[in-house]
Amino acid sequence: MHEISNGEILEALRELNARRVLIQTPEGLKREAQSLADFLEENGIEAIISGDINYGACDPADREAKMLGCDALIHLGHSYMRLKLEVPTIFVPAFAKVDVVPALEKNLEEIRKLGERIALVTTAQHIHQLERARGFLEKEGFEVVVGRGDSRVSWPGQVLGCNFSAAKVDAEGVLFIGAGYFHPLGVALATRKPTLAVNPYSGDVIWMDNEAERLIRRRWAQIAKAVDAKKFGVITSTKKGQLRLAEAKRVVELLREHGKYTKLIAMNHISYPALEGFDFDAYVVVACPRVPIDDYENWRKPVLTPPEVEILLGLREDYEFDEIKGAERREDEPLGISLRP
Amino acid sequence: MHEISNGEILEALRELNARRVLIQTPEGLKREAQSLADFLEENGIEAIISGDINYGACDPADREAKMLGCDALIHLGHSYMRLKLEVPTIFVPAFAKVDVVPALEKNLEEIRKLGERIALVTTAQHIHQLERARGFLEKEGFEVVVGRGDSRVSWPGQVLGCNFSAAKVDAEGVLFIGAGYFHPLGVALATRKPTLAVNPYSGDVIWMDNEAERLIRRRWAQIAKAVDAKKFGVITSTKKGQLRLAEAKRVVELLREHGKYTKLIAMNHISYPALEGFDFDAYVVVACPRVPIDDYENWRKPVLTPPEVEILLGLREDYEFDEIKGAERREDEPLGISLRP
Repeated sequence: MHEISNGEILEALRELNARRVLIQTPEGLKREAQSLADFLEENGIEAIISGDINYGACDPADREAKMLGCDALIHLGHSYMRLKLEVPTIFVPAFAKVDVVPALEKNLEEIRKLGERIALVTTAQHIHQLERARGFLEKEGFEVVVGRGDSRVSWPGQVLGCNFSAAKVDAEGVLFIGAGYFHPLGVALATRKPTLAVNPYSGDVIWMDNEAERLIRRRWAQIAKAVDAKKFGVITSTKKGQLRLAEAKRVVELLREHGKYTKLIAMNHISYPALEGFDFDAYVVVACPRVPIDDYENWRKPVLTPPEVEILLGLREDYEFDEIKGAERREDEPLGISLRP
Repeated sequence: MHEISNGEILEALRELNARRVLIQTPEGLKREAQSLADFLEENGIEAIISGDINYGACDPADREAKMLGCDALIHLGHSYMRLKLEVPTIFVPAFAKVDVVPALEKNLEEIRKLGERIALVTTAQHIHQLERARGFLEKEGFEVVVGRGDSRVSWPGQVLGCNFSAAKVDAEGVLFIGAGYFHPLGVALATRKPTLAVNPYSGDVIWMDNEAERLIRRRWAQIAKAVDAKKFGVITSTKKGQLRLAEAKRVVELLREHGKYTKLIAMNHISYPALEGFDFDAYVVVACPRVPIDDYENWRKPVLTPPEVEILLGLREDYEFDEIKGAERREDEPLGISLRP
């Protein structure tokens, strides 16, 4: 399904004069990571595989690479995110081989319901086909807007589960290409525009507007459950790209100003079982927005995002999706491997 | 059940001029960690609580403390282990309040079966009562030997789940005081002497010899399951005190010399689900010895310790328990909080 260019990676490592590397991989590329380790060792480079589960470029194993005496880190499956890295890191985005145009073609009638001027967004997996998709849509008469996005993303039109900056453009509706459910949900919530998700594998489409409304109702229920909470645990993550310390402290201060007992908690992988023994009535996750939104059913206490705390305290009325915002992005990443720093 | 001296900790932090600290705690001291955070904040020191589950001094959150801008780490529940730490760290061992003598008194008849010259060992929780226990036993006519132990432990007579150096002394049998099952099992396996475990809470005793024989049979079964394995994953941990890189590489080389496909894996918390997607027939854990021995039922592949690999490859005949050995230990830790470095 995905292509990893072992030859290019070897070349980059030789330029770095690397003798030992750590390979980090998301769940879906474990076999590819292992093959890459085989290939590198056949070519005289010692390879260590990271067994830790990885969900994104926000959690690079650069510290671990340094600790293991590696000269470089190979981060598979995600594009570069602007972070200070402790060893040279090769980001190897994994592009899906599926052609996105047939799914667009099949669903033209639905897509037309978005309007004439549409924003086009996708995930890193399909970003290499964005221009092809744009070309097809323009030929069909659409005016296609591809947002530049901020520094947290790598390319125009790319969205992450925590960043929808590329979707926030002047358009009537948003067309999302990709297989997931969380990303287009975030797009719909962040833009508040009609959002259609086209799955290039199955050819199916989902209108995300109803899904977004359902999510907002569930989130209001979480907020309601936290109304009587007196003790709050505000959690940030020690994953490099999820450590939102200033924002976490802002939330701690806000809660304290409103008379709530509040403590700041830091942890790597945020999950409820690890917190079971503490004495808090509710939690706020100031890290990956996906944790409170996707995982809340596994929490025995209410768990909120920072904007939801503002609603709880009466400081905000409209629902807002939690995003991790970047700065201005100067240049795009290459559509292939990228060596940083 | 445990005493944590908040006042002493505050004093040590003031000496360090610390303005922000990270508090790390094992499962059983979470409420105490939270009270300590309250106390420190009342006294003008910003406190962050680590939400990560901690199992020992082998996994200090010093890197996390540094990353969070903390001036110091407070590590609750375990005594200092000789490791290079990135911030000043206050180790706060937690001593159990239970009196150990009544359980010894109740079981004198069983203890006499160990012989006249007995080794006395315990865990950090009861180490402050070791001299009291020794006094009682000597009064009852025993010759009591308390081993010095190596640099991985803090006090004479202390055993860890990965280090039984203090039990390896010239004695007829070993008396273990403590509540756990794994520690006295390790003592029995590491010393190969009659070992009696006295639980000071319940007053119960267990002879560990049969337990040790049962464990060895289970471990031989694991080794047998790995006989046909062609592909091995050798796992070390990035937890600072469990990173046994040289030993892991030795095991990798040994397996390769015997014609096995072998890859080195590094991960923080070692558990089978995170490894599910890789293509290995068997695993070797070169980290905390407790993982393969206590958790093997949750692994769908055979999982061995380094000495078990040697048995598998025909390089060793007798079963040996995996230990993490230290160097010579020069001085004991204080029987209270300890500031390092």
